[in-house]
Amino acid sequence: MSDKKTIVMFSGDLDKVMAGLIIANGAAAMGSEVTMFFTFWGINVLRKAKKIKVKKDFMEKMFGWMMPRGAEKLGLSKMNFGGMGALMMKDIMKKKNVNTLPELIESAQMMGVKMIVCTMSMDVMGIKEAELIDGLEFAGVASYLGEAEESNVNLFI
Amino acid sequence: MSDKKTIVMFSGDLDKVMAGLIIANGAAAMGSEVTMFFTFWGINVLRKAKKIKVKKDFMEKMFGWMMPRGAEKLGLSKMNFGGMGALMMKDIMKKKNVNTLPELIESAQMMGVKMIVCTMSMDVMGIKEAELIDGLEFAGVASYLGEAEESNVNLFI
Amino acid sequence: MSDKKTIVMFSGDLDKVMAGLIIANGAAAMGSEVTMFFTFWGINVLRKAKKIKVKKDFMEKMFGWMMPRGAEKLGLSKMNFGGMGALMMKDIMKKKNVNTLPELIESAQMMGVKMIVCTMSMDVMGIKEAELIDGLEFAGVASYLGEAEESNVNLFI
Repeated sequence: MSDKKTIVMFSGDLDKVMAGLIIANGAAAMGSEVTMFFTFWGINVLRKAKKIKVKKDFMEKMFGWMMPRGAEKLGLSKMNFGGMGALMMKDIMKKKNVNTLPELIESAQMMGVKMIVCTMSMDVMGIKEAELIDGLEFAGVASYLGEAEESNVNLFI
Repeated sequence: MSDKKTIVMFSGDLDKVMAGLIIANGAAAMGSEVTMFFTFWGINVLRKAKKIKVKKDFMEKMFGWMMPRGAEKLGLSKMNFGGMGALMMKDIMKKKNVNTLPELIESAQMMGVKMIVCTMSMDVMGIKEAELIDGLEFAGVASYLGEAEESNVNLFI
Repeated sequence: MSDKKTIVMFSGDLDKVMAGLIIANGAAAMGSEVTMFFTFWGINVLRKAKKIKVKKDFMEKMFGWMMPRGAEKLGLSKMNFGGMGALMMKDIMKKKNVNTLPELIESAQMMGVKMIVCTMSMDVMGIKEAELIDGLEFAGVASYLGEAEESNVNLFI
């Protein structure tokens, strides 16, 4: 068994995404191959901050409008208080010199962490490739399972 | 180490249950042995849709009445809006030809995915065997751990 | 690969913490080495019930005041109804002779389950060592990954 790590990023909550990215960055820094498989709410983490013009039907527009657009917009899973909690958390992390989500994503990508986006979730939620940040791969559950089988650490976050 | 997968199905949220069942079906289709261990809220996924007459004390009745009865009744973990979100999601999945939860459960069972229900959780929540769908096994945490140790992918959903 | 189990305890919800501790106790009873890595909301599980005098800045005081102080104070992830759900659940578990959270923590520690607290999370949330129960270790993500790599079961709860 190789020294790989595979993390399913299902959640789109600031705190959980933070945990996933810190583990991924840590593992990559220690020399492991890391794959993150973004699915469902997790895909929102990878949306570009600005609105991208793409063709969507009514439901896709609704979903796209209701879900957070990118890593800067995520809320906490607990004590979010309409965004106040997330702001407080980000303020504290800045003071404590903890990296922000966009910084963690960038450093993960620079260290070669493979980020795969679940194509079925994209289809269901009406998210298009053009709306997501660069440097991603696009695949389905079979691809995830192939990576997971070769990993010595598997997490679902 | 064998090619087994073991998934703890703790959550009873439509979106998470969907993720767990898609991974389980995918793995089974690729020839892996798969065990799903349903515990806590996850057990609601396996409840029959219609009310079954069983003897329950007051608290068990309360719990049984408050929890969703079966895979058709689950809500989303986010943006559920009193069931509206779940309906929207199911509507979209139908249009995109994604299998429904009951279909995913059926296909998993047909491909031999082993579904174990946590007996301690059943006892705590007052759920009886007669209230659950057919084809399940009943066991405790030791049985789960036995399966998990032999697996090359372990997830807690 | 050794017979180790490693569990990330991210959640501070009564039901999820219960699941994590039951798996940890079960594995330890079956002879496995078990490491629990408490991070983020999970750290609240280990807070002492009584208020401890420590120096904190304003934000740390706010966080400390809003988060539950110890295993007795946790709420359910679903159907908590401002604490009513958690009380009901604890009442039922008592009647069914299921161990309480403090009992599960104690038995885990007595069986040698290693409990590591994430120092970065402590720093962000302003939790000090003096506020936590005895018998804990303090380390970061690299230490977690070291344990996880040697484990045949890895969970994120």
